[in-house]
Amino acid sequence: MKEKLTVIKVGGKIVEEEATLLQLLNDFAHIEGYKVLVHGGGRSATKIASSLGIESQMVNGRRITDKEMLKVVTMVYGGLVNKNIVAGLQARGVNALGLTGADMNVIKSVKRPVKDIDYGFVGDVKKVNGEFLADIIQKGIVPVMAPLTHDGEGNMLNTNADTIAGETAKALAHYFDVTLVYCFEKKGVLRDENDDDSVIPSIDEPTFKQLVADGVIQGGMIPKLENSFEAINAGVKEVVITLASAIADEEEGTRIK
Amino acid sequence: MKEKLTVIKVGGKIVEEEATLLQLLNDFAHIEGYKVLVHGGGRSATKIASSLGIESQMVNGRRITDKEMLKVVTMVYGGLVNKNIVAGLQARGVNALGLTGADMNVIKSVKRPVKDIDYGFVGDVKKVNGEFLADIIQKGIVPVMAPLTHDGEGNMLNTNADTIAGETAKALAHYFDVTLVYCFEKKGVLRDENDDDSVIPSIDEPTFKQLVADGVIQGGMIPKLENSFEAINAGVKEVVITLASAIADEEEGTRIK
Repeated sequence: MKEKLTVIKVGGKIVEEEATLLQLLNDFAHIEGYKVLVHGGGRSATKIASSLGIESQMVNGRRITDKEMLKVVTMVYGGLVNKNIVAGLQARGVNALGLTGADMNVIKSVKRPVKDIDYGFVGDVKKVNGEFLADIIQKGIVPVMAPLTHDGEGNMLNTNADTIAGETAKALAHYFDVTLVYCFEKKGVLRDENDDDSVIPSIDEPTFKQLVADGVIQGGMIPKLENSFEAINAGVKEVVITLASAIADEEEGTRIK
Repeated sequence: MKEKLTVIKVGGKIVEEEATLLQLLNDFAHIEGYKVLVHGGGRSATKIASSLGIESQMVNGRRITDKEMLKVVTMVYGGLVNKNIVAGLQARGVNALGLTGADMNVIKSVKRPVKDIDYGFVGDVKKVNGEFLADIIQKGIVPVMAPLTHDGEGNMLNTNADTIAGETAKALAHYFDVTLVYCFEKKGVLRDENDDDSVIPSIDEPTFKQLVADGVIQGGMIPKLENSFEAINAGVKEVVITLASAIADEEEGTRIK
């Protein structure tokens, strides 16, 4: 039987504010078994870019990453946010290792081809080195992954943290029983978006299709759930969408099976 | 017999300019056997701090690191400079892994006690995890170390790159035949500071003491050489002071034995 591994993805909002970051570090440190943390950092990047006189341009919620913005996200995601988490986890007895996709060639990407929009130095994940990650995880190391990859030709690439979490979970499903947890600003997938307590506890693929057809699930939640089912179909055991403050609580959130 | 390992320390000036960085990456990629790269980044930190409206304060060539400056050096050393080197080495077939002292608890420091000067978040190295570093190096991984450590209590600490290189070389001397190379802006230790070709090819400790007594070696070179002899006395096989462009050339520079 494979051992349990939890991949947790947290957005920028959680890791960039001291109070929520401290809670996350405590909660994450208490998760038993093998684990991986994937983090964002978009708000800090926007703030620091702005202080440097660089304007953030977003299209469909994605950041246009020109050469100057690439420097900012490399600094902020790979340096500031990542190392603060790593130092914080080390202080809690978690043997964290900060990684971008370039480190040990863990995630290789291709620069997104220009169609209607030129996203610049943005990477679409090509290959996660699951074997290598599994090896270090089994040695007790806890990867803390920044939303950055590389193209193998010397360029860092800005890469969506949800995608990194999903692709990493899939690559590790060969070696572990993987639970993928997406931290969310709501308690889970809601039946009624105006009622924070209307969490749907569990969704399978037929139910999902029905809920989309009924208009219950809409907007940005659709690609999130599509990605979740893709992960399940690729061998991930369970995907959970939940509050960051509930990552250690197995009763909370929406479970996708 | 132990296998050969080369620890190379390069200053900010080399890694921050595209032309010299590219040459360094090429030269470093060609070094045979096990290797470690330790880098600085002070000029970029000063530049980015200035763009963010943060003034750099230096005392005896060391940076005063308050909370805001700590954010800058964490971003710049751990993110921007480190990841550019890692991606560049990966493109050259070197399986680089960027590390700060916090990552896998590789280097723990203590915040420098305040005597005459409060250096702020500056670390004095306490312990390098040589066993762990040796293990990953023997697996073919090439550590690329930023001048940052941690205190084990959740704080990153700004740490002198020469010190990191020296302490890392000493910790690895138990496992490898270590050559420590300090890249320098001159061809080596000069007999006449106005004559760039007056390189002293080799210095042992009695010669060093004589050259200091004679006034031939003076200023900042004295602590550099004292540190070199300390490394030698702690088991490092050889220390070389040379031009960055000569790191792959075994005939150049000053050798300390």
